[in-house]
Amino acid sequence: MSPPATKPGPFDAGLERNAANFAPLTPLSFLDRAADVYRDKVAVIHGGSRFTYAEMRGRVRRLASALRARGIGLGDTVAVMAPNIPALLEAHYGVPLAGAVLNAINIRLDAQSIAFILDHGQAKILIVDGEYADTARTALAQAKAKPLVIDIDDAEGPPAARQRIGALTYEALLAEGDPAAELARPADEWQAICLLYTSGTTGNPKGVVYHHRGAYLNALGNALAFGLSDRSVYLWTLPMFHCSGWTYTWAVTAAGGTHVCLRKVEPAHIFALIGAHRVTHMCGAPIVLNALVHSPDAPKSAFAQRVEVATGGAAPPSPVIAAMERMGFRVTHLYGLTESFGPSMLCVMPESWDALDLPVRAALMARQGVRMPTLDELIVADPETLAPVPADGATIGEILLRGNTIMKGYLGNPKATADAFRGGWFHTGDLAVVHADGYVEVKDRSKDIIISGGENISSIEVEEALYKHPAVLEAAVVARPDEKWGESPCAFITPKPGTEPPREDAVIAWCRDHLAGFKIPRTIVFGPLPKTATGKIQKYVLREQARALGPRR
Amino acid sequence: MSPPATKPGPFDAGLERNAANFAPLTPLSFLDRAADVYRDKVAVIHGGSRFTYAEMRGRVRRLASALRARGIGLGDTVAVMAPNIPALLEAHYGVPLAGAVLNAINIRLDAQSIAFILDHGQAKILIVDGEYADTARTALAQAKAKPLVIDIDDAEGPPAARQRIGALTYEALLAEGDPAAELARPADEWQAICLLYTSGTTGNPKGVVYHHRGAYLNALGNALAFGLSDRSVYLWTLPMFHCSGWTYTWAVTAAGGTHVCLRKVEPAHIFALIGAHRVTHMCGAPIVLNALVHSPDAPKSAFAQRVEVATGGAAPPSPVIAAMERMGFRVTHLYGLTESFGPSMLCVMPESWDALDLPVRAALMARQGVRMPTLDELIVADPETLAPVPADGATIGEILLRGNTIMKGYLGNPKATADAFRGGWFHTGDLAVVHADGYVEVKDRSKDIIISGGENISSIEVEEALYKHPAVLEAAVVARPDEKWGESPCAFITPKPGTEPPREDAVIAWCRDHLAGFKIPRTIVFGPLPKTATGKIQKYVLREQARALGPRR
Repeated sequence: MSPPATKPGPFDAGLERNAANFAPLTPLSFLDRAADVYRDKVAVIHGGSRFTYAEMRGRVRRLASALRARGIGLGDTVAVMAPNIPALLEAHYGVPLAGAVLNAINIRLDAQSIAFILDHGQAKILIVDGEYADTARTALAQAKAKPLVIDIDDAEGPPAARQRIGALTYEALLAEGDPAAELARPADEWQAICLLYTSGTTGNPKGVVYHHRGAYLNALGNALAFGLSDRSVYLWTLPMFHCSGWTYTWAVTAAGGTHVCLRKVEPAHIFALIGAHRVTHMCGAPIVLNALVHSPDAPKSAFAQRVEVATGGAAPPSPVIAAMERMGFRVTHLYGLTESFGPSMLCVMPESWDALDLPVRAALMARQGVRMPTLDELIVADPETLAPVPADGATIGEILLRGNTIMKGYLGNPKATADAFRGGWFHTGDLAVVHADGYVEVKDRSKDIIISGGENISSIEVEEALYKHPAVLEAAVVARPDEKWGESPCAFITPKPGTEPPREDAVIAWCRDHLAGFKIPRTIVFGPLPKTATGKIQKYVLREQARALGPRR
Repeated sequence: MSPPATKPGPFDAGLERNAANFAPLTPLSFLDRAADVYRDKVAVIHGGSRFTYAEMRGRVRRLASALRARGIGLGDTVAVMAPNIPALLEAHYGVPLAGAVLNAINIRLDAQSIAFILDHGQAKILIVDGEYADTARTALAQAKAKPLVIDIDDAEGPPAARQRIGALTYEALLAEGDPAAELARPADEWQAICLLYTSGTTGNPKGVVYHHRGAYLNALGNALAFGLSDRSVYLWTLPMFHCSGWTYTWAVTAAGGTHVCLRKVEPAHIFALIGAHRVTHMCGAPIVLNALVHSPDAPKSAFAQRVEVATGGAAPPSPVIAAMERMGFRVTHLYGLTESFGPSMLCVMPESWDALDLPVRAALMARQGVRMPTLDELIVADPETLAPVPADGATIGEILLRGNTIMKGYLGNPKATADAFRGGWFHTGDLAVVHADGYVEVKDRSKDIIISGGENISSIEVEEALYKHPAVLEAAVVARPDEKWGESPCAFITPKPGTEPPREDAVIAWCRDHLAGFKIPRTIVFGPLPKTATGKIQKYVLREQARALGPRR
């Protein structure tokens, strides 16, 4: 911890920490409290099954004690490949309660990436849902690591996917454990709790290590910022393997709310669950909002309750916000990274915005906003001099974060860790401006900025203009080498199905109405966009395609 | 902090704390965030004046830098005697920002007690509101400590009370400071932040020392448990000198809510402020609820908004709850002590209670409840063996607390500190039972229990029976020496004004209908009850009176 006070005085002598007034911060305490306070309340809903908080703790203690009995302890890695089902939620408690580190693996990854992760994280155990058994088998064949494999046989899973490749089932593992086992919580709040691999748009993924202190604090901060309470019902539309579900795996429990599991993001199913369980909160990528809005199953009238939905990544355009609000959702825009335990900024909506017209409000809401209550400091600054940019809405700097909700570092990668933390700040690699009201707006990833004739062009700004075109479903803009300007914007566009595909000159004319001249794409390519396993557009693939077009003359 | 992991492994090497991922927890960070995020929002309302969060930070920085310039720093005590006005709220930030310890003194204390506190706490500065200048002058004449005295000249104070006894005014002190001063936050989250003296029903008061870590965490826990948000408006009916205002001095700021100051608890004024500022949250002793309910100024219809009101100490009786609910309040029962930063338990009200009849619900709500989200552990146990009592609603044990929201200890009192923390738990001295649903109900202070014929009698239980009598305004029950039974209950009763005073035999007949035979008071005394400066009934005075009656034959 920090050094002791330099001048020990009457307020220090005989007033040291002891067992009564100091306990390491850990989200494990949230489950203990929920199981004491909300013992008979439904903690988890999964299809037709229900667990109370007392039952959830019993299962978590079984998991932890069974892992211990099999030799798992401090510093060991337990990997899980599963969708948002109870086993993965339980692992967020049971694995750290055993003293170990949970490595929730992205289920959309290919076998080769998973093999890399199993080896790099030195997984001792792999718990895998039947639907992903094939991929896991292939990955295990490639990996040097030989973890004990445990099958999740989920009755809610598709029948064809209930295959087994492991030594025993998850329920059999739980049966080895003791539901009354009282295991000690970590002795040090800096202990690792989770290992999460970045999607790695280039090169090998990096293993982000979370600590108990940060998990506890970010969960509390999210619960407060998102207004969770013991009346909240949280629908798991956001993958739990994504930044530990933005720490909602712990935040919902901290508030004493109810977790509603979800194997697959399907609009009809989501709408049914929202109605049936009176869901109050959910999170998801913009693509989830899009899917809901465009679904033929979208409800004709609003839900009885208001549903708070938090979304990260690209800003939701105003028609999507309007359509979501008609159904009874309230959309909040967030910003975060794996390295910051998920959300570290949110677009706080002051009361004065309530009365604004939607287009004005949507433009304000599209910004990433302000720091979370539990993030210590945030600046947009020159990454080398650390000088903050003026709050002029125009000067671009890098978003730098600092505080207790930042990772320990990258596993086994001291060079990347040192680089990320240089100057005593976490460097996000995201470029942004600060508006006069202090709200931050992301303009681009450092490597996505286009420099044309010496001017910086935000690829996001060009994409936003394109997204407003009625015939555009998706758009991505990258730099293309340009003989005259050095670089110029090259747009890749997927037209909306069922509409007349736009013509190149019409798109350029549209951009002329919405953008400064130097920002207009000089090249336009129509077609589907390449995406990562998490649904992010792979800009590096597009950059290669743009480069392959040769320099624009 | 806690010892490092015993087996340093891949999750520790190269993954140490650094300036980017670790910051000492301190509630000072809440004001910095609020001043950045809610800069132009009204932070503080006091009569006709308003401060935005940016202005509040400016004033706090002025205070801290002016204190520093006058030589105040780490380990120094700054005492404040003031009602709930902006200066005292600002001191909760400005004093610790200077590195010093805030000693908020109970303004209802006599000069002798205040002199003791100034000497014991070694106050270097005393900031005093004009209304308390007379008492302060007398206290200073008695004290050995010679603090620099600073006058608060509050335009909202009564004209006669705007007298000055100090070297300069509070506003003149602020004028010496720099609103842009960026002072470092504490380097250690275990540093002392506040010094608060217990009311001391016997002997000299003890100085409870708070740490930054606990202040931060209890504020977050309260904000979450009480449902604070940036739309919240908090009315200061609870003294800020009482457990730092139950940490709402920091919690309201953490949520970005608005503080509404209040010099004096007067029902008409409170009702007017609730209406004018759309107050959503307030706290207060049961006596405040009583005053509101019985006020001729009570509104005839409910407020437009729901007002959450948290109350500690004795359970609010069901007629008071009913009357409060008619006005639009929702009452939550809390439990806490100075040593636990105020609230450490609250009576969580599950949805299933909503439909219950008021008498049933009131009985459930009267219990002190369950632990706060940020309290680590709570047991009701034998204070020597630490064996928890069964959850049978009958077996009495002592409430023992443990976690980060417990004090550092008592200033300069290692014996009392060691005694309070024996066995690794904080001993509250309160006796309670645990019900089958896990909810805790306080039965008595350890020293208030009456042992009659070998049976424990809870003085609170007898008092509750008496309070239900229509002609009883206040009641307190203590042990009287008894020749036959060792001790027997002796009741002191204040009859309700304007009603026929009850007769002794009628009261005993009433108790016979409501209590087991051995619990019925054998002695009844009518008259006013002696109280401490905080309004607590002084049972030790009554015990002396009961003893003076001689043993009952």
